[in-house]
Amino acid sequence: MSRVAYVNGRYLPHAEAAVHVEDRGLQFADGVYEVIAIVNGRPIDLGGHMTRLARSLRELRMAMPMPARPLRIVLREVVRRNRVRNGIVYLQVSRGAYKRDHPFPPPSVLPSLVVTARSGVAPSASMVENGVGVVTVADQRWARRDIKSVSLLPNVLAKQHAKDMGAYEAWQVDRDGFVTEGTSTNAWIVTQDGTLVTRPLGHDILAGITRDAVLRLAREAGLTVEERPFTVDEARAAREAFISSTTAAALPIVRIDDAVIANGVPGSITRQVWDLYEGYMAGPGAEDWIDG
Amino acid sequence: MSRVAYVNGRYLPHAEAAVHVEDRGLQFADGVYEVIAIVNGRPIDLGGHMTRLARSLRELRMAMPMPARPLRIVLREVVRRNRVRNGIVYLQVSRGAYKRDHPFPPPSVLPSLVVTARSGVAPSASMVENGVGVVTVADQRWARRDIKSVSLLPNVLAKQHAKDMGAYEAWQVDRDGFVTEGTSTNAWIVTQDGTLVTRPLGHDILAGITRDAVLRLAREAGLTVEERPFTVDEARAAREAFISSTTAAALPIVRIDDAVIANGVPGSITRQVWDLYEGYMAGPGAEDWIDG
Repeated sequence: MSRVAYVNGRYLPHAEAAVHVEDRGLQFADGVYEVIAIVNGRPIDLGGHMTRLARSLRELRMAMPMPARPLRIVLREVVRRNRVRNGIVYLQVSRGAYKRDHPFPPPSVLPSLVVTARSGVAPSASMVENGVGVVTVADQRWARRDIKSVSLLPNVLAKQHAKDMGAYEAWQVDRDGFVTEGTSTNAWIVTQDGTLVTRPLGHDILAGITRDAVLRLAREAGLTVEERPFTVDEARAAREAFISSTTAAALPIVRIDDAVIANGVPGSITRQVWDLYEGYMAGPGAEDWIDG
Repeated sequence: MSRVAYVNGRYLPHAEAAVHVEDRGLQFADGVYEVIAIVNGRPIDLGGHMTRLARSLRELRMAMPMPARPLRIVLREVVRRNRVRNGIVYLQVSRGAYKRDHPFPPPSVLPSLVVTARSGVAPSASMVENGVGVVTVADQRWARRDIKSVSLLPNVLAKQHAKDMGAYEAWQVDRDGFVTEGTSTNAWIVTQDGTLVTRPLGHDILAGITRDAVLRLAREAGLTVEERPFTVDEARAAREAFISSTTAAALPIVRIDDAVIANGVPGSITRQVWDLYEGYMAGPGAEDWIDG
């Protein structure tokens, strides 16, 4: 079956889906994106993703490419046309195509919208079963990681470094030795007394939609949760660790650099969080495409 | 006359020139670029731009899209087809198009190459005559500004802020109060004793090709030059100030935020540097398209 992508008003064969060479997403990283998990054909936390998209655009003084309802219809249509039951839908908005110049183009230049969808991007069963390793790297990113922009070059470099080192993800570390987040995941530890710890929101990290769901689910299940920064040393001495994201859910970490975590096997609280999140995706997290 | 762009092996009408929606330049800012001034049909410091391009690519472990000589021929051809006598040629290399995933794609994925050209992007005569203003902003960029990547979103925001404030450029300022550089220019001051000062190279700034030429020309002309960081306060108290870039040459600054510089008119040393650089562009700076 051939894939289909939506680009600025048209559904195109994926291979032919293109944007102009002077699209500001390409020349200036002047764009934002969202990745939404599809489980059994339904979008997980679609409302949360739409709210975050609107915020990212607002922070960059960029217009929504269309109102929320037709945008949701486009997302649904791209998922349908690609026959994605379990996978992701990706949407990217840039500040449009215009002759190259740093300042914003005139308001008459319309934003670009690209939507693609793809099946099967979840971690493998083996990764979930056995956990994965992370390496730590200096956080080299710009100051506004709370905006979900396509300005991802440092994330690419850090993730590739992780791969080179035989790890799955890189945890980025600020100047003071505190972990900010992964390259496409939020970072969590479980302390020796069973408390879940993750960095509080701010300009330093992305407000992960899955991070937010895990916070709520853990608290509802009676787990103790603290939103505070933690150091690499604290993480290495932690009882458990995991990463959260749209695609990784709550994936167990069993190694941080050369330190083995939780005896090298996924810990019980991480398992509990994983199960809570699985239940959430099968239940209230699975939203309708069109709300209201 | 219709414009032409080169994209991955083909010369296309500008309006139809496009890259795939999964080009890593679009999705990850995973690409680099160069802008080369064309004066009287000849490229200024082409060799320097080619060397810097190779360095940017090497730092990102990205392949050259083609060897240097055919690349120079493509640049010349795009300039010729667009009948640019005075303007710029823009080239961008990204890590190619591949299904979206942070780590580098397999080596079989070829880099993307886009080349465009355009006439008349120099500052107006009035800007050169009267000078321009800059505003200062916190430098929010990532840690590797020495790599000329398309990860330019903070530059866009800073430049737009300058425009909103009625200024031409924004000078970005590090945590310690020192000016790093403009959004697409290097920053210079002239002290009260006539010394030219600009920030030394490092990861904090781009190694401007025009910056380098101005350094050489000024020294050859017997001017005193210091490569050292300077603060915003020092700049506000400076005798003169200017910015250097491929398109701005050595454009006089007459205002930094609310501080008037050099009595509000371009200073004599800035004029001298401008004239030196004009002479350079009309002489040794104008290179042949094909070297050797």
